[in-house]
Amino acid sequence: MSTSPTDGIPLTVGNSRVKEARKLSRRSVRTERRLFLADGPKAVEGALSVEGCVVEVFATQGAQAQYADLLDGTPVTLVDDRALASLSDSVSPAGLVALCRHIDSPLAHVVTVAPRLLVICADVRDPGNAGTVIRTADAAGADAVVLAGQSVDAYNPKTVRATVGSLFHLPFAVEPDPAAAVRAAQQRGLTVLAADGAGEVDLFDADLSGPTAWLFGNEAWGLPDELAALADQRVAIPIHGRAESLNLSTAAAVCLYASARAQRSPR
Amino acid sequence: MSTSPTDGIPLTVGNSRVKEARKLSRRSVRTERRLFLADGPKAVEGALSVEGCVVEVFATQGAQAQYADLLDGTPVTLVDDRALASLSDSVSPAGLVALCRHIDSPLAHVVTVAPRLLVICADVRDPGNAGTVIRTADAAGADAVVLAGQSVDAYNPKTVRATVGSLFHLPFAVEPDPAAAVRAAQQRGLTVLAADGAGEVDLFDADLSGPTAWLFGNEAWGLPDELAALADQRVAIPIHGRAESLNLSTAAAVCLYASARAQRSPR
Repeated sequence: MSTSPTDGIPLTVGNSRVKEARKLSRRSVRTERRLFLADGPKAVEGALSVEGCVVEVFATQGAQAQYADLLDGTPVTLVDDRALASLSDSVSPAGLVALCRHIDSPLAHVVTVAPRLLVICADVRDPGNAGTVIRTADAAGADAVVLAGQSVDAYNPKTVRATVGSLFHLPFAVEPDPAAAVRAAQQRGLTVLAADGAGEVDLFDADLSGPTAWLFGNEAWGLPDELAALADQRVAIPIHGRAESLNLSTAAAVCLYASARAQRSPR
Repeated sequence: MSTSPTDGIPLTVGNSRVKEARKLSRRSVRTERRLFLADGPKAVEGALSVEGCVVEVFATQGAQAQYADLLDGTPVTLVDDRALASLSDSVSPAGLVALCRHIDSPLAHVVTVAPRLLVICADVRDPGNAGTVIRTADAAGADAVVLAGQSVDAYNPKTVRATVGSLFHLPFAVEPDPAAAVRAAQQRGLTVLAADGAGEVDLFDADLSGPTAWLFGNEAWGLPDELAALADQRVAIPIHGRAESLNLSTAAAVCLYASARAQRSPR
């Protein structure tokens, strides 16, 4: 177990370091300080796998003992249960929260790694949806994610939690201009496919074998026409029943796994 | 526009009919009375498409005017904004809530329609997940859904909302014993596939062309071993990146669309 700078004296909820960390629940503070909180063992494990990401880990004595292997070699700041709960977004906190540096990459870097499968989210507003798309992108073997336009903050605690560690597994960029993300992908030779219920190509008729960037829109209103028009094709998932559409994260899962299948085992 | 029994005198939040309807926010009351509330135009439209489902629609004057076509011929009870909000689970209520009779079918009926694609959810606890799975089942053209075991109430307002109308589009059964649902599907000639991250068959190697029942487990702990063992095969979605798993509704989407594709355009 690592030696804690506060060994034996857990910090309380009123402690100034705890208070400062708690301010990171606000997006403006996260953005200004380029810091965020990663809550729970999966997120802390993910954060620790990224070199230079973790500043310190706040943990209760119980969690420090329970996760001794995970925390080995990491600076741990002991806090009491109430202080930990004040840093956690979870209903039942697991007892450890990492204070992390931002880890997003520039758009240019994300496209320069010459991905075969890239995900661009435009104006995705719900933190759970954004996190689930990142988790699904990771599972499907995507190379990177771009959160574009007015998308939710990647470092929102609900987003981080919904990624279940995947936020730390693949590079992602934050790009205010979705059109710039589309053009950057095209300039690197990726075919940009807009997921669009009114699209002209059926997903299962589309040629998905080449390098592809999927463009997903807002959960309520989809993609603006002018952005969808920039894509090389607009692709619709077939609706066989009476549902009007799929929700964003399930639609992304179907598209990304269709790509993964076509790229990895063409048949 | 239909003539309302309360034309001109909107009921208030303290009215006894409004109070009685509000009690349906409790599962025990829903179960006892075999009634539930369907909130918003999509859900009301779905409910009205099922003969005998809607008892009455509570609507504000604004909504009655806005949705006059939808409500034509339906008994409308006018309520004021506060009364409507007290019946709605939504942050921004759309102004209309239908009081509906339960519409679940017996398990025997659901399997007797000889489905080609059936969805069995065992112990799915999150209302949003259950609703999203029902919506996705509808979109993928599944014939029916079984909510089995200790699954969330299909009539939970959050479940109803997450289905976006699909609760009313395809038959569903509520069956306390998941094993009974599996056996009933097998007796009707369906191959039961358990979605299981540790499954012995890769999804994209599985033969999905025949009549299939997908068995999905709890969002946190998956399927109990003894239930998964009853399935004909245990099928894993390949994980290409570093994610440990997919979440329930995205996993269901990938599986159901793989089935829809294999059944509808074998190639």
